[in-house]
Amino acid sequence: MKRIYLDHAATTPIDPQVYEVMTKILAEEYGNPSSIYSEGRSVKKYVETAREQIAKAINADIREIYFTGSGSEADNWAIKGIAMKNRAKGKHIITTQIEHHAILHTCEYLEKDGFEVTYLPVDEFGLISLDDLKAAIRKDTILVSIMFANNEIGTIEPIKEIGEIVKEKGVIFHTDAVQAFGNVPIDVKDLNVDLLSISAHKIYGPKGMGALFIRKGVLIDNLIHGGAQERKKRAGTENTAGIAAFGKAAELAVINLEENSKHLQTLRDMLIEGVMAKIPQVRLNGHPTKRLPGNVSFCFDYIEGESILLSLDLAGIAASSGSACTSGSLDPSHVLLAIGLPAGVAHGSLRLTIGKHTSQEDIEYVIEQLVVIIERLRKMSPIDVNCPIDDAVFEDAGHHH
Amino acid sequence: MKRIYLDHAATTPIDPQVYEVMTKILAEEYGNPSSIYSEGRSVKKYVETAREQIAKAINADIREIYFTGSGSEADNWAIKGIAMKNRAKGKHIITTQIEHHAILHTCEYLEKDGFEVTYLPVDEFGLISLDDLKAAIRKDTILVSIMFANNEIGTIEPIKEIGEIVKEKGVIFHTDAVQAFGNVPIDVKDLNVDLLSISAHKIYGPKGMGALFIRKGVLIDNLIHGGAQERKKRAGTENTAGIAAFGKAAELAVINLEENSKHLQTLRDMLIEGVMAKIPQVRLNGHPTKRLPGNVSFCFDYIEGESILLSLDLAGIAASSGSACTSGSLDPSHVLLAIGLPAGVAHGSLRLTIGKHTSQEDIEYVIEQLVVIIERLRKMSPIDVNCPIDDAVFEDAGHHH
Repeated sequence: MKRIYLDHAATTPIDPQVYEVMTKILAEEYGNPSSIYSEGRSVKKYVETAREQIAKAINADIREIYFTGSGSEADNWAIKGIAMKNRAKGKHIITTQIEHHAILHTCEYLEKDGFEVTYLPVDEFGLISLDDLKAAIRKDTILVSIMFANNEIGTIEPIKEIGEIVKEKGVIFHTDAVQAFGNVPIDVKDLNVDLLSISAHKIYGPKGMGALFIRKGVLIDNLIHGGAQERKKRAGTENTAGIAAFGKAAELAVINLEENSKHLQTLRDMLIEGVMAKIPQVRLNGHPTKRLPGNVSFCFDYIEGESILLSLDLAGIAASSGSACTSGSLDPSHVLLAIGLPAGVAHGSLRLTIGKHTSQEDIEYVIEQLVVIIERLRKMSPIDVNCPIDDAVFEDAGHHH
Repeated sequence: MKRIYLDHAATTPIDPQVYEVMTKILAEEYGNPSSIYSEGRSVKKYVETAREQIAKAINADIREIYFTGSGSEADNWAIKGIAMKNRAKGKHIITTQIEHHAILHTCEYLEKDGFEVTYLPVDEFGLISLDDLKAAIRKDTILVSIMFANNEIGTIEPIKEIGEIVKEKGVIFHTDAVQAFGNVPIDVKDLNVDLLSISAHKIYGPKGMGALFIRKGVLIDNLIHGGAQERKKRAGTENTAGIAAFGKAAELAVINLEENSKHLQTLRDMLIEGVMAKIPQVRLNGHPTKRLPGNVSFCFDYIEGESILLSLDLAGIAASSGSACTSGSLDPSHVLLAIGLPAGVAHGSLRLTIGKHTSQEDIEYVIEQLVVIIERLRKMSPIDVNCPIDDAVFEDAGHHH
């Protein structure tokens, strides 16, 4: 059976051009780029080319790009590195309730260490309020970390406006752009961003590769201490093949950004409109227009996300209920709770994230299958569809684990 | 010109069988292993196979293996994770003066945070004293971290005896086995090791992959917070291709360990004997027998390591002055200083590390070339070879940067 992959926010297949660069280095360039002999010098060129490609993709300087082992590492580094470096100055951090767990759990960890964290609420679309942000900034605020675009519901935050406010207050501004990078244009100079996290495997690059942009002049503690790699800021032998592949993936993402983005957006809107028109009692999560071009997130009343996923999988469609990082967890998504959905409704979430290889026929097939699946699951559901949805209903029905 | 690569301690070329596993996953298995649909389940099998292969290679349980982005990350995690978890109990850590910088710089970072670190000295061969260790353990000692084998001089520490002492005192024992793994047999049960760091690219696997063995029951803070990957201990989408490749590399390393090790040792001893017999005023660094089978480390009086390296490179030979992680640094090696060499002598160091593809002809050629190179460099040296070597001489000669 043909498979339709609609979980590009979780990870993407590697691009053939990226694969070519990566396998060439794996096969031919085994030198350690920190070595001075020719094998080392030879592979070092690929690392520096990749750094240029990434820098260019976000309008940064090459000396502002630091490679990491993942987007999560970049997030952890940004938060802990800035916190530890500045703790004599202040111990207050501002973030949002809908961040990725790489930010939230890091902040929670710092709270145990005496830091104070303000988690800004969001509105029903997942947008923070600029007034809330202004009001939250204190004299001892050392860092504001607000995601560029949400991984579950796709909402794009007003990063430029946030950057202006934070800069005016003289506070450091980090944004987790793992989902945004390659999908929306990013210009770190224009946005007044001081630190920005990205990941390769979300843009048709390999897993195990991320990067942190650190604006020149921003002082930060290391997360991984040791050798002198990455200008003494991130120790460990460079993942040369992964780095070169990431560079290529970034280059491709940016070259084709407008075109790809338009393609994704067309299919996204087709999917949203098709489902909303053909299936009753469904809500679109996230902002209708300020959202990632490839992101679709629904909540279907009276059914659980996991049942939908399993049925879709049998129909050849790969999708997710939310973040892949928390799959297996039975807690309702913190993002869906933050936009005001009751836990019972949040359990019925489905995220479909479109990629550059997705076709119109794929979307038509998915809509068709969803209509059948949702109807069948609702018939099987022990929950009375005439009752109001809330937590109590789910618990009574034995559905709340 | 044929190249002879003798820097296997810095990194190794990828094994063809490892390459095959890795590229298969890069090309065919793009799923996120945390996802529940078939693409996710399919690639998850490879991750779990790799975990089994690594576990088997060191006689651990599969639930005791945690994948990381490098050996340095594993070292940082072990030290910081144990330190932060146990700081209410005590803030004293014991390590050695000759650890890899991933350990030393991490310990120095913790010292700024109120931890106290004892750096055990070593003898002229690079061995720690078990009596020193016993005397150093205090009531507030929470961690002992002693490397399995040194990356520069190849000396193998008495890990089993250290493990017994540390266990008896009820302290947690970590060892950085990045250089030892694949070169000497490792049995974490027999050795009483609680945590052990390893890296893929030292054993013919890919760069950007490491692992930390954490004995069941040992409590540790996370270094990278976020998603629920690695049983909630190390966040970030799994580097599936790298993990599978690491597993294969570990399997191959262990299957062929005895044979490979014998091959390396034969060539090592041939290289040591050849150089010592044919070149005057040369010292062997490290222990003559308690050393890694592939490690050769010399100091040549009256010349600088970097000049030797550049001449060797022109002769088609890739070698290193010490650790690749500190290439470019002009400070003398902390390891060579710790074994008692004056800075002037330490500057003349050369490390040649043999690999499984190295042949007897390669070694013969290297000895031949070294004889010529050392003689030529000594003739060019502004240092009077009849003067005693010490720092002052080097400084006077303008060689000390």
